[in-house]
Amino acid sequence: MSEKTALTPATHTTPPAKFSHGVKKGNILQVAGQVGFLPAVPGQPPTPAGPTLREQTLQTFANVRAILEEGGATWDDVMMMRVYLTDTDHFAEMNEIYNQYFEEQGLTQAPAARTTVYVGLPKGLLIEIDALAVLS
Amino acid sequence: MSEKTALTPATHTTPPAKFSHGVKKGNILQVAGQVGFLPAVPGQPPTPAGPTLREQTLQTFANVRAILEEGGATWDDVMMMRVYLTDTDHFAEMNEIYNQYFEEQGLTQAPAARTTVYVGLPKGLLIEIDALAVLS
Amino acid sequence: MSEKTALTPATHTTPPAKFSHGVKKGNILQVAGQVGFLPAVPGQPPTPAGPTLREQTLQTFANVRAILEEGGATWDDVMMMRVYLTDTDHFAEMNEIYNQYFEEQGLTQAPAARTTVYVGLPKGLLIEIDALAVLS
Repeated sequence: MSEKTALTPATHTTPPAKFSHGVKKGNILQVAGQVGFLPAVPGQPPTPAGPTLREQTLQTFANVRAILEEGGATWDDVMMMRVYLTDTDHFAEMNEIYNQYFEEQGLTQAPAARTTVYVGLPKGLLIEIDALAVLS
Repeated sequence: MSEKTALTPATHTTPPAKFSHGVKKGNILQVAGQVGFLPAVPGQPPTPAGPTLREQTLQTFANVRAILEEGGATWDDVMMMRVYLTDTDHFAEMNEIYNQYFEEQGLTQAPAARTTVYVGLPKGLLIEIDALAVLS
Repeated sequence: MSEKTALTPATHTTPPAKFSHGVKKGNILQVAGQVGFLPAVPGQPPTPAGPTLREQTLQTFANVRAILEEGGATWDDVMMMRVYLTDTDHFAEMNEIYNQYFEEQGLTQAPAARTTVYVGLPKGLLIEIDALAVLS
């Protein structure tokens, strides 16, 4: 009998609705869709890290990672990343950023599976990522 | 050794293809993408609850919930909700409906994680939701 | 303590970034988004099975299945299929192909749950599918 617990990093803005940034139950950890918002500043609305794909992607990774860490997980535990882009022309650049980032993270196990699709996102946002992790 | 079983509420229309509205295996329960179709009426094609986002969202929640219940689960077991909207302008209204609905459901654990993206859906449908649950 | 392992069928092209075509950890197996690329030919870029939805869908199924088999799983273990199409007009034809394919696969358990949404995909690709499996 395990409980579902919310994973709420101190850096994160309050979700705009009754959902959790991440949840963990037993050995399953689910990260909600993250975007490139900077760490929350009280009294200010969520602000993207910048207008570029690179800035937003790196901030999105940082936001996913903060939730994983809150749940005692690392990138090595991630089974699946869902990457939502708004423009097929961003695929190559996203992959470059993705590869460089995960090189630097020092994965010790197989990289996660991934699906990338092209959708609409709120104005100003170029990327959204969610993740499913299975802890050891 | 657990079997995968189909979760098929009596209220549901027959899926338009060889898939299940929900499946359960061990402690994992997956709800297929649900839309705002009213309970099935024999001999009639699936009919949305109405043209508005509110009507369709509430019916979609009811359809997801029926599948959860069929599998012995509740909203408290849901780890992840994927919300597909067709229009970014619907985000605020969907959140209002979402919050009000889950207030009323009396969750006793952390709310599920969530990803919302904007995609195409069949004509007349404004929202689709699927859900992953982990049972205790 | 289980390790996450990569599932890399010999038929598959190298992923265009640092992700795995499939991963398995404990009894959870995740298949990355697959498209209708023919088996890899060294020195040649990935090539779709053909321009039609039928050709691409059947090849995509073959690609998903190869990953499942690499992980010791079958279609019967699949809990969820996510089908990404580019055009709502393809829904009926995809369902026909889907039904026929799974009839032929001789499932012995409930068919997987499924969500179908309409997104953008790289030029020339009409369908992408990923899958979550839970092994017995």
